[in-house]
Amino acid sequence: MFKQLGLIGCGLMGGSFAIAMRQAGLVERIIGYSKSPSTTERAKQMGVIDQAAESALLAVSGSDVVLMAVPVSASEGTFRAIRHLVNPNVLFMDVGSTKRDVIDAARRVLKDRVESFIPAHPIAGKELAGIQHADGQLYRDRQVILTPIPQNSPQMVEKAHALWKGLGCHVTVMTPEAHDEAFAAVSHLPHLVAFAYFAGILQQKASDDFLALAGPGFRDFTRIAASDPTVWKDILIANREEVLKQSQRFRGALGALEQALRECRGEALEALVRGVSQARSQWRLGSTPRTKA
Amino acid sequence: MFKQLGLIGCGLMGGSFAIAMRQAGLVERIIGYSKSPSTTERAKQMGVIDQAAESALLAVSGSDVVLMAVPVSASEGTFRAIRHLVNPNVLFMDVGSTKRDVIDAARRVLKDRVESFIPAHPIAGKELAGIQHADGQLYRDRQVILTPIPQNSPQMVEKAHALWKGLGCHVTVMTPEAHDEAFAAVSHLPHLVAFAYFAGILQQKASDDFLALAGPGFRDFTRIAASDPTVWKDILIANREEVLKQSQRFRGALGALEQALRECRGEALEALVRGVSQARSQWRLGSTPRTKA
Repeated sequence: MFKQLGLIGCGLMGGSFAIAMRQAGLVERIIGYSKSPSTTERAKQMGVIDQAAESALLAVSGSDVVLMAVPVSASEGTFRAIRHLVNPNVLFMDVGSTKRDVIDAARRVLKDRVESFIPAHPIAGKELAGIQHADGQLYRDRQVILTPIPQNSPQMVEKAHALWKGLGCHVTVMTPEAHDEAFAAVSHLPHLVAFAYFAGILQQKASDDFLALAGPGFRDFTRIAASDPTVWKDILIANREEVLKQSQRFRGALGALEQALRECRGEALEALVRGVSQARSQWRLGSTPRTKA
Repeated sequence: MFKQLGLIGCGLMGGSFAIAMRQAGLVERIIGYSKSPSTTERAKQMGVIDQAAESALLAVSGSDVVLMAVPVSASEGTFRAIRHLVNPNVLFMDVGSTKRDVIDAARRVLKDRVESFIPAHPIAGKELAGIQHADGQLYRDRQVILTPIPQNSPQMVEKAHALWKGLGCHVTVMTPEAHDEAFAAVSHLPHLVAFAYFAGILQQKASDDFLALAGPGFRDFTRIAASDPTVWKDILIANREEVLKQSQRFRGALGALEQALRECRGEALEALVRGVSQARSQWRLGSTPRTKA
């Protein structure tokens, strides 16, 4: 389907994408660039990329599909580095967890050339960063959100759609605004809360004893607290307005539970927990959203 | 090792204990009682118990080991029902997630007979309640906390210790106070927070769309939000003082993160997240506590 993939950022997300593209037979050749030369070198040694590029621009040169898999705060700099080779014949995507800020940066830097940039967010990841954890199955059966902008041609959006479907993903299209609001609720806030919860434990004198007693519930609840600090600082700051709104709602819900506890109102507490428990029991990973914007 | 296990409460925890005891060859015969006759019947049909008892007292009759696996708020009533058959030759344990309230109830009801009651808390569970989810491997490799009281004979504590070790558990002994403080931090607060977080999502108009977009991070973070409402209402209320203390600390830590976000202090935010991420990456389930009280 594609002759050459230009990969900018050979980390977990980028590396996994490259492996998956090759496994699916969707690309003939992969050229990769990472800020750290040792990462690029490792990607080459692992066979994830065929050739190391010395710059982001050189990774784009001659490619008909480009994936930018860098922390969202590095988006603008990357757009600047490659803008002269962005053109309507090259499908260009990112994998950022926030969309409005990346699109704003793309518009600022690429101007007219923004038409071939299809903003994408695959709902996949691991708490382990780096090329060494790249995994060709990372995207399989996962949702990918595309948030096209008015400048994008329908053909380019269709091409992006087909590519992700070819990797076994379920593709959903929505507006950047709806995306950022939804992911503040279901991803960014949980990370913020998990970071805060774990920080609260670490602040206590007996934290080592506490942690030694923690069980499987704790393990799952805090898994995302091990996420990459650079990546998550970027995401939380980029989407801070929506995240803070969600955090406010969360504090309200927590306050209601605390109040019921403080007043020993067992029935009210149980009713609240029952509603949540039933809803969570019915929830399934990867069900398709009802509305598509 | 034991002739007859008297099981009071044939749910997930009790049923799993019965299966594990039998698989380990630690008991010859199991007699079980549940508040709901259909549950007791089901446990018998499944072969988890050999005989259904018509009352808690009858389950204790002739047993040399008794496990009380009921919601913590049902402890006092259960103690009342069986107190006449509690005696120094019968090892009697619970599985409650809180210890001070259960011990208080035991002291009130059993008086001198409290000597053979060894308070126990196996750190195991599932978000699925009921005998149908009973699993002989539930306790394997898990920690079990014993919180003996001064009235307990060392021999009885040793017997309890040996039993849980025989089921493949790692046994830790600590005071009831230290137990309740630690589990408020590593178990009860995470449940409260997960309930509150999910409730906050459900309160929003777009909650269905949000939930359809949620990924693996959300799945793990909210797994405990599906926990049994009756069991958790009891636990949270029984240990509310410690839980509210922990919740206060958590709010403080969340406030610090929110403040950094609000002020766009990327470095401070990243430093905070980095500390948490490193600590969580190093944490392993089932490491042994450093101190034993």
